Amino acid sequence: MPIKEAVRPGGRSARVQEAVHQAVCELQAVTPRDELTVPRIAERAGVTPSTIYRRWGNLSELVADVSLERMRPDDDPLDTGTLAGDLQAWGEQYLEEMTSVPGQRALNDVMASADGGRRERCYRYGESLMGTLRERALVRGEGAPSVARLIDGIIAPMTYRLLYDPEAATTGNLQRWIAGTLTNEE
Amino acid sequence: MPIKEAVRPGGRSARVQEAVHQAVCELQAVTPRDELTVPRIAERAGVTPSTIYRRWGNLSELVADVSLERMRPDDDPLDTGTLAGDLQAWGEQYLEEMTSVPGQRALNDVMASADGGRRERCYRYGESLMGTLRERALVRGEGAPSVARLIDGIIAPMTYRLLYDPEAATTGNLQRWIAGTLTNEE
Repeated sequence: MPIKEAVRPGGRSARVQEAVHQAVCELQAVTPRDELTVPRIAERAGVTPSTIYRRWGNLSELVADVSLERMRPDDDPLDTGTLAGDLQAWGEQYLEEMTSVPGQRALNDVMASADGGRRERCYRYGESLMGTLRERALVRGEGAPSVARLIDGIIAPMTYRLLYDPEAATTGNLQRWIAGTLTNEE
Repeated sequence: MPIKEAVRPGGRSARVQEAVHQAVCELQAVTPRDELTVPRIAERAGVTPSTIYRRWGNLSELVADVSLERMRPDDDPLDTGTLAGDLQAWGEQYLEEMTSVPGQRALNDVMASADGGRRERCYRYGESLMGTLRERALVRGEGAPSVARLIDGIIAPMTYRLLYDPEAATTGNLQRWIAGTLTNEE
């Protein structure tokens, strides 16, 4: 069940969401994972625990929702002057974030969530980012592979290595994935 | 904590594991997920619930362990005469299995597991399978990319699409991933 989409921006619902998300982030910074509880989050956010249970169902789903926010890409990624450079700049930043302890936790939270819509939104973030970088390249007059090829050639191995083999989620490999995808243009 | 590695084959421990795994498989076939409990599994396997808690910790980890078994590839994958054919034959079977309801559940169980070693074993399965197919190609006198390239070019987009965008986990896309990886040989 997609939760975010049902929230009107600016309404009471959005304010509750923001307060609860912020409470989770603040508590995560100072509390060991197994001491993070719905009542503590509710207290810090100034809402009742039942508000949280009603909207998110349980702690895992709430934490996954907050973690998904962390994975949302910057709306305006760095413009380096070339598609290869833009992909490398974004990818290095993403790898740095996702190989950190909070990043690995965020990735795990989203994967462990029973809400399949959350993974789909992760996918949409990547799709929209690749679309932005591709458009920018075309405007510059560069050639660019399709969004699907950028996803399969760059985001897929990045994500696969982050999830299954984090030691190979390196900036050197990123460079090879980008080069392979851009030279192998159909 | 990797559980399997610690089990001596043939010993009492291995027999308990086999009985418990089989009980989970049998119960999964006839029981809705939320009625699957440790006491029911223990009863069917002829062990005490505390045996299960001691070895697996909780129901999620037990179910993830059983699901990982389901993802272990065939030791002797089909030999079609070419590397492209072998990859396609294996990949089609894997996609069919993993887009099924039990396959999607298995994938989710492994991803949701707190045991990172389980995902790593998933990765090792793929690595060993690609190694087998690559060796076979070299013996035939075919050229073949490195195992790392086969993983990044074929297994990564398959797994990425299965997890994030199952509608694109198709045999047609599989064919494109294989062709792109084999023609783009360094």
